[in-house]
Amino acid sequence: LTTPNKVSSLSEAELISRIKARLPPPPDWLIVGVGDDAAVIEPERNRLEVQTVDALVEGIHFDRAFTPPEAIGHRAVAVNLSDLAAMGATPRLALLSMGLPAGLPLADFDAIVESLVTVAARHRLHVVGGNLTRSPGPLIIDVAVTGTVKRRQVLTRSGARPGDEIYVSGSLGGAAAGLQALQVRLGGAVPPAAATSADTTDIEARYLYPDPRVRLGTLLARNRAATACIDLSDGLADGLRQIAEASSVGVEVDAEALPIDTATRAWFEARGDDAILASMSGGDDYELLLTVRPRLRKRLRAAERHGGVSLTRIGVCTTERSCLLRRRTAEGLKTVPLPHGFSHFR
Amino acid sequence: LTTPNKVSSLSEAELISRIKARLPPPPDWLIVGVGDDAAVIEPERNRLEVQTVDALVEGIHFDRAFTPPEAIGHRAVAVNLSDLAAMGATPRLALLSMGLPAGLPLADFDAIVESLVTVAARHRLHVVGGNLTRSPGPLIIDVAVTGTVKRRQVLTRSGARPGDEIYVSGSLGGAAAGLQALQVRLGGAVPPAAATSADTTDIEARYLYPDPRVRLGTLLARNRAATACIDLSDGLADGLRQIAEASSVGVEVDAEALPIDTATRAWFEARGDDAILASMSGGDDYELLLTVRPRLRKRLRAAERHGGVSLTRIGVCTTERSCLLRRRTAEGLKTVPLPHGFSHFR
Repeated sequence: LTTPNKVSSLSEAELISRIKARLPPPPDWLIVGVGDDAAVIEPERNRLEVQTVDALVEGIHFDRAFTPPEAIGHRAVAVNLSDLAAMGATPRLALLSMGLPAGLPLADFDAIVESLVTVAARHRLHVVGGNLTRSPGPLIIDVAVTGTVKRRQVLTRSGARPGDEIYVSGSLGGAAAGLQALQVRLGGAVPPAAATSADTTDIEARYLYPDPRVRLGTLLARNRAATACIDLSDGLADGLRQIAEASSVGVEVDAEALPIDTATRAWFEARGDDAILASMSGGDDYELLLTVRPRLRKRLRAAERHGGVSLTRIGVCTTERSCLLRRRTAEGLKTVPLPHGFSHFR
Repeated sequence: LTTPNKVSSLSEAELISRIKARLPPPPDWLIVGVGDDAAVIEPERNRLEVQTVDALVEGIHFDRAFTPPEAIGHRAVAVNLSDLAAMGATPRLALLSMGLPAGLPLADFDAIVESLVTVAARHRLHVVGGNLTRSPGPLIIDVAVTGTVKRRQVLTRSGARPGDEIYVSGSLGGAAAGLQALQVRLGGAVPPAAATSADTTDIEARYLYPDPRVRLGTLLARNRAATACIDLSDGLADGLRQIAEASSVGVEVDAEALPIDTATRAWFEARGDDAILASMSGGDDYELLLTVRPRLRKRLRAAERHGGVSLTRIGVCTTERSCLLRRRTAEGLKTVPLPHGFSHFR
């Protein structure tokens, strides 16, 4: 009997070698790569830089009981790519900082790195450096990324104006439903009364392997269709409030227009939850939420055609600074306040 | 009786506000700062960028029992500034990623941020964004930094040639001795037999508040005195081996020449340790180790005069690729292999 290797059996230099072995050939703008005190980079000419950082911490953002190492690596990069997409930026480089519990199987470490590097390469994001350290407890993956964007093409949260239409990419709530399904199937959570026999593969994948809307973001930036943009890492309700606050507008959203797919709706309804509210409040969707002047609608549809994901009009920006949801009820149309958002800061 | 406020009593947005309130006015190159999905930056013209990341994890890199919050914030920035200095880069911007245990006192959070922002500002490093998350256990502070440097002035580990002289800034072993002193005074470690009454304030400060050699690094880069450079985060022995390996040279170091101050020497000797070996193997010094062609010695002394820290010649690079230490013993001069380095990856 052999015990599986743990990361603690290797030195930092050996682990770095395993990362380096998985990296694609360095781009020509990388003057000094992994292995010195820091990476040295030739900046792209005539572009602004977009920088952000996002950490995944075990026990807060994921549970190893139901998040395979491939998904951990995938999500660590995807959440950052999603932030770049929301700014209209083209991904360029990443710094990878990992805190490794001594007992982490080496095979898991390899799978995390492999997945992380693969997702990065798919979006032309190059890992140029980083830092490895031990962790006394949780597995920690902290990725800092840099993208580039032309000065006049930066997308922010603050450009929406009253009358702008509100659109969202893809569909909503799938990741939140998928996380619940994983917690039931593998995490020991109590299953909902009904629908326990439903196939939850699709919604689970929405949580585990989000597809950041990088292409859509850069297309929106280039054709300047959007007046404001944000990603839905903290859910639709939060995203709407953030745009409303940053842009000094109100929003009015049509509940019936929200793109919620059948499996997601079925999952929430089987739990006895309100599928619309649950889909608006759930986090981890990593879709883009954007506002568009009605006269630029055609440009928006051009970005949609080449962006590889559908865009659904869900509401409108208003002068009155309140955040409202219009719902059809037995007594007719009713306007209620937006539900509260999801917070990763739990 | 009032219980002290914990970070868990505040929302992420409220904590971000407390960070923003401590930031100096944004520089003109910062197009979008804290508060959007990412920061947007105008790159500096005609400069390469230098990027690195370094994490401090509670229980691995520091112990809150004897590391005050001011020191945690200070060190989190200083370790990154030291990496920039080793590349000859001028600090520019930082992304701050924190993992906060729910029980962290709000006053500690404030003190960490205050100290971090103060040290950053002293070196013209601007915090432009970041990420806050909860931590299920350790306090985590992960800082990613970007600096700038002219193309022909980048300092790497790989430029040393046989015959180059080896210099080190400041003095050695103080941080390692200071850490031991803190462990004895506040961490419950067993004191050494002798010298327990010695004043350890100075060596403790060397561990808690390292002074990154930013000015020296940029001066060395500008006057091109150094052929290779590295910072001593993992100790002198490790730094020497790294330069030797990256530059394909050997090194021969004179033990008697090593700059070890009286308090450090006294501390190690009171423990019965070999002060020279302990000072070479101890980490956290954050001095610069560099190699210089003998004919450029004058330039080096010019950098020393304006760099605010002494430089001591400690050895020479050799053709023969071994790492040796020359020591005076009772039987005369003796040449032994370098001791092994310190690893933060423990």
